[in-house]
Amino acid sequence: MPVKLTAPQAASLLSVKGVSLGFAQAHVRKPNRKDVLVITLAENSRVVGVFTKNRFCAAPVLLCKDFLAQQQGIRALLVNTGCANAGTGEDGLKRAQLSCEALAQLLNLQSNQVLPFSTGVILEPLPVDKVIAGLPVAIANLQEDNWLNAAEAIMTTDIVAKGTSRQIELSGKKVTITGISKGSGMIHPNMATMLGYIATDAAVSQAALESIIQYAVNKSFNCITVDGDTSTNDSLILMATNQAANTEITENSADFVLLRDALTEVAIELAQAIVRDGEGATKFMTVTVEGGKSSEECRQIAYAIAHSPLIKTAFFASDPNLGRILAAIGYAGIEDLDVNTLQLYLGDVLVAEKGGRAASYREDQGTAIMKELDILVRVVLNRGDAKVTIWTCDFSYDYVKINADYRS
Amino acid sequence: MPVKLTAPQAASLLSVKGVSLGFAQAHVRKPNRKDVLVITLAENSRVVGVFTKNRFCAAPVLLCKDFLAQQQGIRALLVNTGCANAGTGEDGLKRAQLSCEALAQLLNLQSNQVLPFSTGVILEPLPVDKVIAGLPVAIANLQEDNWLNAAEAIMTTDIVAKGTSRQIELSGKKVTITGISKGSGMIHPNMATMLGYIATDAAVSQAALESIIQYAVNKSFNCITVDGDTSTNDSLILMATNQAANTEITENSADFVLLRDALTEVAIELAQAIVRDGEGATKFMTVTVEGGKSSEECRQIAYAIAHSPLIKTAFFASDPNLGRILAAIGYAGIEDLDVNTLQLYLGDVLVAEKGGRAASYREDQGTAIMKELDILVRVVLNRGDAKVTIWTCDFSYDYVKINADYRS
Repeated sequence: MPVKLTAPQAASLLSVKGVSLGFAQAHVRKPNRKDVLVITLAENSRVVGVFTKNRFCAAPVLLCKDFLAQQQGIRALLVNTGCANAGTGEDGLKRAQLSCEALAQLLNLQSNQVLPFSTGVILEPLPVDKVIAGLPVAIANLQEDNWLNAAEAIMTTDIVAKGTSRQIELSGKKVTITGISKGSGMIHPNMATMLGYIATDAAVSQAALESIIQYAVNKSFNCITVDGDTSTNDSLILMATNQAANTEITENSADFVLLRDALTEVAIELAQAIVRDGEGATKFMTVTVEGGKSSEECRQIAYAIAHSPLIKTAFFASDPNLGRILAAIGYAGIEDLDVNTLQLYLGDVLVAEKGGRAASYREDQGTAIMKELDILVRVVLNRGDAKVTIWTCDFSYDYVKINADYRS
Repeated sequence: MPVKLTAPQAASLLSVKGVSLGFAQAHVRKPNRKDVLVITLAENSRVVGVFTKNRFCAAPVLLCKDFLAQQQGIRALLVNTGCANAGTGEDGLKRAQLSCEALAQLLNLQSNQVLPFSTGVILEPLPVDKVIAGLPVAIANLQEDNWLNAAEAIMTTDIVAKGTSRQIELSGKKVTITGISKGSGMIHPNMATMLGYIATDAAVSQAALESIIQYAVNKSFNCITVDGDTSTNDSLILMATNQAANTEITENSADFVLLRDALTEVAIELAQAIVRDGEGATKFMTVTVEGGKSSEECRQIAYAIAHSPLIKTAFFASDPNLGRILAAIGYAGIEDLDVNTLQLYLGDVLVAEKGGRAASYREDQGTAIMKELDILVRVVLNRGDAKVTIWTCDFSYDYVKINADYRS
């Protein structure tokens, strides 16, 4: 069950001027589920993306990068679930291209104005005919207030739909931000098996939008892990439709930080939602490593903790078997780490220091914290000023069940 | 259940002249189980060791390294299960030292002639009084043919005892090698939560013995992983008692390779036994990556495959969801990897090439292989001559169960 996460109400996902969303049940893999999503953007929208670093990146990811580089003005996005179109070679590229051409034709666009996205099983051919057959229905129900349907249409093993909105004021004009995401397994930075779409009606320069997506992804989707697997298909898209009548935001605008932080907040909420809905998750863990010499060493330690199956199963069992955390700190690969000068906290409780259990620690304190649903693990290295926070979940029977059964 | 692994017969574990083994039920953590092992060595034995690289290495590991460096002639080993004496700071060192002093006194040795070993729960104080109280019983039953009892005495979450023997001839003299090991969780190179003790009655120079243990560990214990967790306590000890009356083996001896390879065979069998008895294991997987530019990149890819929870759960389910293997190859961190020129085989079956599924591949072939208990995953990179083989197991409900319940 998702950890303290419920699907948003349709009304809470605010429409973004210039963005319409339509869906279809195209039976890509399974019948009777929304599995095709079309998003259209007003003319003069600006679009930026961040994509997986997996060398086996999927065909649609390759096309997305290509089309964004061509700068012909992205006007539509096409997403399918059920098949990742990854590990599909030349044929996969052709099928992704065909789907873009089909949508472009229906919308009177060029195919390089359509960004394709796929998520689902790897190494199987995309049933592109089914995707294309679903397009007229999706186009017929394009609406600005379709964000919840859109969030549902991109789910795979997700249990709840993920979306959130914010409103801010820029140069006296109300600006809306709405985002949706999907993903719950194969979740790891660079990036998750995840798709994320965040739109704003603000007017933003291309350079400012590029800067914001990099900032936001480093604070959000690049700080989560469920199972350490980096997907072939991860894509985060940030869209600005230029419909809010604000003065265009550049990197030098006084309001740049205001917009950047609001978009980053949305990205963090969407990223955390993915962890809260992590496959089989029963606990949400925040891992903070501070006092490091560098962010890099803080990240190494944080991820050693967040990836350890032994730690994740102990959290599942609400067992304060905290020595496993010390072990992970010890094998994180920091050659000159002095284990005698660091502290380990669980919530507010000092658990270990001076290379061993803290004198003040009592197991009932650990047990009480382990029973909570949201747990903070904090490591203080006392050797510098760097600090990193990441989010992960525990490892349960259901993780195995979901992933053992995924294709059946 | 262990994968194609049964405990050795007592008679199959051959006595090694100069090595005696005795055990006790000392109730270190649980009653009615062998949990203390004493091994004594004839005078003039030579002993070398390889230990965990975890920065939080346990107190006994620190003492082992110290005592081996002092070169006073190791004459005894003391092993306890139930408590790892790791993450225990200064107090842990004192307790480990106390246990060595107690055994040294009973055997009329100096304490730096006794190597201590602990395995079990981390972050809890070693009940050293219980260990010491068990020593007289262990000493009373010291025998040369106690190898199976010894293998049982070092088990923790292991299901079956692990041991094997070999005999070879060196300069016309029969030489015996016997080894035992333990470990089934927190298993990862550098090294596993594992203890290994291999003894031979051969006469071997100190330098040759050092050379052999490095060679053997790199071919065996450093090639296994169950869960990617590197333990605080891993120790492999190689002992040569100089009782076989062979001409002393040096690195220049004609027979050096013969002895080295026989000891390495034993180490490989003991290491593989740990994976076959991996926590919750139902499948044994051999992962070979060949045609790499370097061993390092082959290892990176092999471990990316072997650590992926998504792959391990698919093997548990006998589901040829092979795209997950491509994804792992892709995120292994080889920046210039060309996914279009590599091949992926499952057993003898070509599964993927040219960036996608092989034209000749049929899913029933994959399904048939996935149902086997021993499965070979082979990646051919076609960019060099390097080759690496590692061993791992699948990821099942029982892994979660065992590790969620471990302390209760």
